[in-house]
Amino acid sequence: MQRTPLLMSRLIDRGAKVAPEAEIVTATAAGTRRQTYRETCQRAHQLAHALRDAGIGVGDRVGTFMWNGSRHLEAYHATAGMGAVLHTLNLRLSARDLEYIINHGGDRLIIADADVLPLLGKLAGRIPGVEKVVVAMEDGYEDWSTSLPNAVDYEDFIADRPLTFEWPEIDEHSALGLCYTSGTTGDPKGVEYEHRAQYLHTMAICMADVMALSATDAICGIVPMFHAMGWGIPWSALMLGCKQVMPHRFTDPARLLRLIADEGVTMSAGVPTIWQGVRAVLEARPGEYDLSRLSRVTCGGSAPPPSMIRWYWDTLGVEMIQGWGLTETSPLATVSRRVMQYAHGELSIDEQFKNVAKAGQLIPGLELEIVDEAFRPLAHDGESTGEILIRGPWVCSEYYRNPQPERFRDGWLITGDVGRIDAGEYLVISDRSKDLVKSGGEWISSLDLENHLAALDGVAQACVVAQPHPKWDERPVALIVRAENVDIGSEQVVAHCATRFARWQLPDDVLFVDSIPLTSTGKMDKKAVRARLEAEGYRLPELRQG
Amino acid sequence: MQRTPLLMSRLIDRGAKVAPEAEIVTATAAGTRRQTYRETCQRAHQLAHALRDAGIGVGDRVGTFMWNGSRHLEAYHATAGMGAVLHTLNLRLSARDLEYIINHGGDRLIIADADVLPLLGKLAGRIPGVEKVVVAMEDGYEDWSTSLPNAVDYEDFIADRPLTFEWPEIDEHSALGLCYTSGTTGDPKGVEYEHRAQYLHTMAICMADVMALSATDAICGIVPMFHAMGWGIPWSALMLGCKQVMPHRFTDPARLLRLIADEGVTMSAGVPTIWQGVRAVLEARPGEYDLSRLSRVTCGGSAPPPSMIRWYWDTLGVEMIQGWGLTETSPLATVSRRVMQYAHGELSIDEQFKNVAKAGQLIPGLELEIVDEAFRPLAHDGESTGEILIRGPWVCSEYYRNPQPERFRDGWLITGDVGRIDAGEYLVISDRSKDLVKSGGEWISSLDLENHLAALDGVAQACVVAQPHPKWDERPVALIVRAENVDIGSEQVVAHCATRFARWQLPDDVLFVDSIPLTSTGKMDKKAVRARLEAEGYRLPELRQG
Repeated sequence: MQRTPLLMSRLIDRGAKVAPEAEIVTATAAGTRRQTYRETCQRAHQLAHALRDAGIGVGDRVGTFMWNGSRHLEAYHATAGMGAVLHTLNLRLSARDLEYIINHGGDRLIIADADVLPLLGKLAGRIPGVEKVVVAMEDGYEDWSTSLPNAVDYEDFIADRPLTFEWPEIDEHSALGLCYTSGTTGDPKGVEYEHRAQYLHTMAICMADVMALSATDAICGIVPMFHAMGWGIPWSALMLGCKQVMPHRFTDPARLLRLIADEGVTMSAGVPTIWQGVRAVLEARPGEYDLSRLSRVTCGGSAPPPSMIRWYWDTLGVEMIQGWGLTETSPLATVSRRVMQYAHGELSIDEQFKNVAKAGQLIPGLELEIVDEAFRPLAHDGESTGEILIRGPWVCSEYYRNPQPERFRDGWLITGDVGRIDAGEYLVISDRSKDLVKSGGEWISSLDLENHLAALDGVAQACVVAQPHPKWDERPVALIVRAENVDIGSEQVVAHCATRFARWQLPDDVLFVDSIPLTSTGKMDKKAVRARLEAEGYRLPELRQG
Repeated sequence: MQRTPLLMSRLIDRGAKVAPEAEIVTATAAGTRRQTYRETCQRAHQLAHALRDAGIGVGDRVGTFMWNGSRHLEAYHATAGMGAVLHTLNLRLSARDLEYIINHGGDRLIIADADVLPLLGKLAGRIPGVEKVVVAMEDGYEDWSTSLPNAVDYEDFIADRPLTFEWPEIDEHSALGLCYTSGTTGDPKGVEYEHRAQYLHTMAICMADVMALSATDAICGIVPMFHAMGWGIPWSALMLGCKQVMPHRFTDPARLLRLIADEGVTMSAGVPTIWQGVRAVLEARPGEYDLSRLSRVTCGGSAPPPSMIRWYWDTLGVEMIQGWGLTETSPLATVSRRVMQYAHGELSIDEQFKNVAKAGQLIPGLELEIVDEAFRPLAHDGESTGEILIRGPWVCSEYYRNPQPERFRDGWLITGDVGRIDAGEYLVISDRSKDLVKSGGEWISSLDLENHLAALDGVAQACVVAQPHPKWDERPVALIVRAENVDIGSEQVVAHCATRFARWQLPDDVLFVDSIPLTSTGKMDKKAVRARLEAEGYRLPELRQG
């Protein structure tokens, strides 16, 4: 067989070849901005020329500080083709973390959206390796300015460059991208993506049993392109030539729904908090949005409550595909579909949704194990619970310039998630290992409690965290955001938990709050919740008299 | 990222893990024989033990002389896992060719179905490298015997072996399989398949825009598993755990239809002659078969007439997916779906079927060119016609122990097919280069004429071949198999051609025949047609008076 390296440059130009007129739609203040795949491909090749002329070569790091939009896609395309390394900077990081990852990653040039330029500008003088900043301007930001060095407008940067760049043939294990995990403890840790791994991932998510991405789709990736390669959607879309609809900074649920309806989106992807917000708008304004073309949404980042998955199916006929993965797994590792086997066609709808509530089955090519504290493999019986290990061709083997060998063992990644695997090889996530409530030598899953609480009428959002207890070690406390105009009390919340959980698993306290803090990747930030409770001098009820 | 070799052993056990109870159904004289994926996987591991105990190691060649059935699947599974090389022997080869490929391939052991054992037995004494023959017995063949050395019953061979074999870690470029092309000229040429290439192909054909193979399918692969890895279906099925329905030797259309209906088959795959036969039975016996679960059939090996593709859609609602590829391309290279882009949803059904009539768009990862005689690339304008070149990670780079460098150029395979590529990057096959009719310096596509003739009422099958002409070099002659109880004449056939083709492209003669000879892979054997005409002293009409 021919020795063809698995380079992203072999895939990314394909969409423009097979579907040159397919559209890439970017939301703007006034509406949308549209360009074809042919134009996008030519502009990406022009960007590659401009980057090369700016001194960027194979292996050099190019940062992006951008929303999901056509120019971010061009940056993906250009850097992958030319062999540079795309370092996607999370727009929601603190200035301190941002400074750390730009310097640690070694970014030589940053492409930034004009509206977030001020955030980046705070780092002026603190990111000495950055030689140039390229500013992607949208309507309303014509007058951008910055104290960062050598700032140039994106359009000026690529103007008049040749429309074709001869992509170099490099080693398939070469670096393609860099993404830092949101890092709930210590400094952010970088995951370096490689061509071969992402090539395989790009094919895998197009498989019928994974996301089934197709050229016939109009895909709206809401998950930011600065999260783990946007779950791989930008790459697959470039390869397929499917219509893409990109929300840019306009991610409030009503605006998203308008975009999805107007552009005939067939498939979307985002974290559970997005879909909770979208649901709330749909419930408040029934019939306002025509979602008849929408067939499926992928939900990951954290586990969606089963009641929400069911709501999307029953109300909209939309299949919510649950996926599980980590920045470290490129990122998709397992996926759960409503019908995953020929025999599932005969299951009742309720039984089908029991499977959908699980994190899913492993994508072909990956391997999964659960182990006890001594790293002994546990049975796949749906009961035995342990640390989840994973390995395979798109799983990372160390962190970038910070190997952290304790996170790896015998070629496996120790995921930091705790779960069980049932006889059907479905993975069920119990919790992040650091979010488990350890009570009296037993584990209580904060996730199970949250999912159960999310199904209670009147609960908009639920968050369960551990609080210290002198006898039991830890006890669970529930924080509840009430739905609008609904008044429920602690007794109802605890009584609802008691319909499913044992007495010792019930929350010791229920706190009603206005909101739950989120991490930079849109997950509930339990570290922040615990820190706030500590700062407030919170104590469990039975300890207050002391 | 982890350095995980792309070995088939990482994929083939997955089906039994995720769907242990899914069924593998094999047709038998009395009905069907059924086993689960769990059993199949265990039996494959047992077979690997038995093969190892018989002296088969990594890289050793194991021949199979078998129909599509569960034991053939076990042979795929076992050899791939243990690193042996599966040499699939075509049951329809002449004894001479069979002897050649067994000896040339270096087979050390052959697994044969009992019913075809006599065919293999003819080679007794002429295949000295074969140390053992393992006989897979089905009902009615309990009393098999053979003069071949060391024959043993398959069940005795694997009995009492351990249920788990530790698959070795080998280089991903290691040989996986061996398949000889049917070879219309000279000795058959062997294509050696490798793990990495077939791993990628296995993933690719599961992509939504390719065959969309899914664990929710019940797949009936009619294409023999001795043709180019059965188009990759056995591998994908093992990986997915989908239900498999295997016709064994019972491939007459009525029996196939009974099997497809009874087993709720959702997807099938075979050459055009199979689907023509199936169509004839369906037309003769309307309403007899419940095909409500069948959603798509893949058709390849040679180009299906567009009228047949349309018939399956209009009559059954079944999408016929046209695929193009060669033994040398592992085999799938292009694929044509009814709707291949978001914008195609707005095309009329007639326009959609114009695309379906083409060989299709390239599967991601492959590259295609058409070139003139001097190997200069031709425009992708839908007009320029030339030799088709292809390259990519599952395209072969030489023939096994017979490199044939003239079939390769600058890393490209010269396919031997002639065609054009349109602005939508659809490949349209004009002909096999050796089947083109070269008339007066122009080319006439025998395929275009055949497709047009196949749409004429009363024509069951049409075959166009070149015949020598002193002035024009070659002129086309049409051979027609009439549909049952229909009487059409030469004038109607030529008049039908004249509705689309220019005068100089019309056949000079129409011959009505009872059947068209087929090659060992089920294609019309034009070499045999031409040889028969020559043996009969055939001359074109205008040359007969001389």
